[in-house]
Amino acid sequence: MAATLTISLDAMGGDSGPQVVLAGAELALERKPYLRFEIYGIEEEVLPILKSLPKLEAVSNFHDCEISIAMDEKPGKALRKGRFKSSMWQAIAAVKEETADACISAGNTGALMAMAKFCLRTQAGVDRPAMAAIWPTLVGESIVLDVGANIGADAGQLIDFAVMGAAMARALNDSEKPTVGLLNIGVEEVKGQEDVREAGKILRESDLSNLHYHGFVEGDDLGKGTVDVVVTEGLSGNIALKTAEGTARQISGYLKAAMNRTLLARLGYLLAKGAFDQLREKMDPRKVNGAVMLGLNGVVIKSHGGTDAEGFAAAIEMGHDMAANGLLQKIKNDLEQFNQLRSQEETGQDT
Amino acid sequence: MAATLTISLDAMGGDSGPQVVLAGAELALERKPYLRFEIYGIEEEVLPILKSLPKLEAVSNFHDCEISIAMDEKPGKALRKGRFKSSMWQAIAAVKEETADACISAGNTGALMAMAKFCLRTQAGVDRPAMAAIWPTLVGESIVLDVGANIGADAGQLIDFAVMGAAMARALNDSEKPTVGLLNIGVEEVKGQEDVREAGKILRESDLSNLHYHGFVEGDDLGKGTVDVVVTEGLSGNIALKTAEGTARQISGYLKAAMNRTLLARLGYLLAKGAFDQLREKMDPRKVNGAVMLGLNGVVIKSHGGTDAEGFAAAIEMGHDMAANGLLQKIKNDLEQFNQLRSQEETGQDT
Repeated sequence: MAATLTISLDAMGGDSGPQVVLAGAELALERKPYLRFEIYGIEEEVLPILKSLPKLEAVSNFHDCEISIAMDEKPGKALRKGRFKSSMWQAIAAVKEETADACISAGNTGALMAMAKFCLRTQAGVDRPAMAAIWPTLVGESIVLDVGANIGADAGQLIDFAVMGAAMARALNDSEKPTVGLLNIGVEEVKGQEDVREAGKILRESDLSNLHYHGFVEGDDLGKGTVDVVVTEGLSGNIALKTAEGTARQISGYLKAAMNRTLLARLGYLLAKGAFDQLREKMDPRKVNGAVMLGLNGVVIKSHGGTDAEGFAAAIEMGHDMAANGLLQKIKNDLEQFNQLRSQEETGQDT
Repeated sequence: MAATLTISLDAMGGDSGPQVVLAGAELALERKPYLRFEIYGIEEEVLPILKSLPKLEAVSNFHDCEISIAMDEKPGKALRKGRFKSSMWQAIAAVKEETADACISAGNTGALMAMAKFCLRTQAGVDRPAMAAIWPTLVGESIVLDVGANIGADAGQLIDFAVMGAAMARALNDSEKPTVGLLNIGVEEVKGQEDVREAGKILRESDLSNLHYHGFVEGDDLGKGTVDVVVTEGLSGNIALKTAEGTARQISGYLKAAMNRTLLARLGYLLAKGAFDQLREKMDPRKVNGAVMLGLNGVVIKSHGGTDAEGFAAAIEMGHDMAANGLLQKIKNDLEQFNQLRSQEETGQDT
């Protein structure tokens, strides 16, 4: 990885704006000195900070923009107002114009999705994009999608998600044939599962070379890490993700309260502090920051809006990995393979 | 609560069958000595155990049944095969025939749902039943429904769930006007939210006397306990429930590993053991065992199949609370009030 790789940054996104974005870029640069940056933002707010980070400044081009998109702006309005002019749009457009390999924004999710779709368009054969998150498990990390780009998904869209998620798994680590599960509920014959069942049937029959279809998984398989890629529609994916975050915070709350209740418990806590620190690190949401918008003609990463420099650096590294490991090409190839297999089957030409 | 209250038990349900069911009933009887039981099962398997529990035997009628429903039986087949003849069916029928006030089964969820719907029918005005679970939160307990009776729900069904869930909250504790939230995702203008939005709009406008509509909540509000009742469709509800269970197990796993890694950590663990025990009790899934099937002409409780006597006793106590506190009547009244309000609005007669 000797060649440079360029990241475009929406410096205005996130709860803390340029402060966190630039500090995060500086951190990422320390770890990957071959990174270059195209930075988009409002000059008065960004330049003073950039000037205080000379190493980052040395490898960055700054572009002044007219508009920044507010975190609570409605996507439609953000698109009308911010098209061409906003730091968010221009950071995305840099990927389209190939002056950057990946775009990172901690801004308004809905606006980012709307602009990315409008600017980059979906890849050939992709019905609609999905957002994929990294899920820490007992045995490592899994990919979960869709975590909220759309609500509901038909069988064909679920299959797209499976193929794109597996391509992302291959771009993320070297697993050659990631395992893929469809999120479902255990109860048999519940009404409304037709799409999930149909998707499962097709995935099983297709026998793709780049993914192994495991079958249905349930909510508790997420934490276990039963499969590399968990596929579901956006409502349940988003709810599962936030529920897990909430449960982790809830248990931390219980634990903290319990460890403070007696002198003996506090003493025990002090002795076991190393272990507690390890636990905290294991549960650190910053390490898995960065949802990937899959299915677009360009790599766009959504960082958590409330993250810090460490978390933003993780999102940049995610963008780096996706671009460096050819995410888009992998998705393209795998979708082509799948569609070829399907059309052979439909015309009965399978050898 | 001086009068007796009768519980019908499907003694054959659950991973451990009559052993756990009867031991659970014995435990519940210790706490509520005015309970009476109608026990349904296969004589050879149940009677020897019942005879070993003389206190329980003294307040129980045993009924020999021809069939027990396997945990993995498909619901449709279970219904065809087990109608009239199975312990599950007969335990439900006891509620219909009013020889019991509530039915508890740890059996096959799909079969229980199918049989309960077929035998008891839905309450007037209820489009379809829902399963409601108790969710431990940072501030107490919430009710979450639907956790898997059906996948998908239109606006009218979500409103039914809201009204039924609020009635259950009032039957469970004395909150006069429980708060109700609709589970949703934070991203604005995502496609497919029409039903959730429509339900929210109607709930807000209706201004019911027995529930306070809070608005949308997200997955992380579940653990916080933001509202008393969280309403969602069955797929996301079931996935959220299992995801939270899985996350809790995952963190326990991390914690256990961390506390075993060094001698100091082990020593700290020993000193803080009281605190850890408290944490374990707080997270004990047995204490919230027992999902309520809402919207039927009878109280039916689904116990977790893998629970132990303590957990099964909790499910019995849930059935007790629902029957003793007039769950069915509360649902009936609240739905009538809602429908009256709506029809007044529609004909423009609101005073």
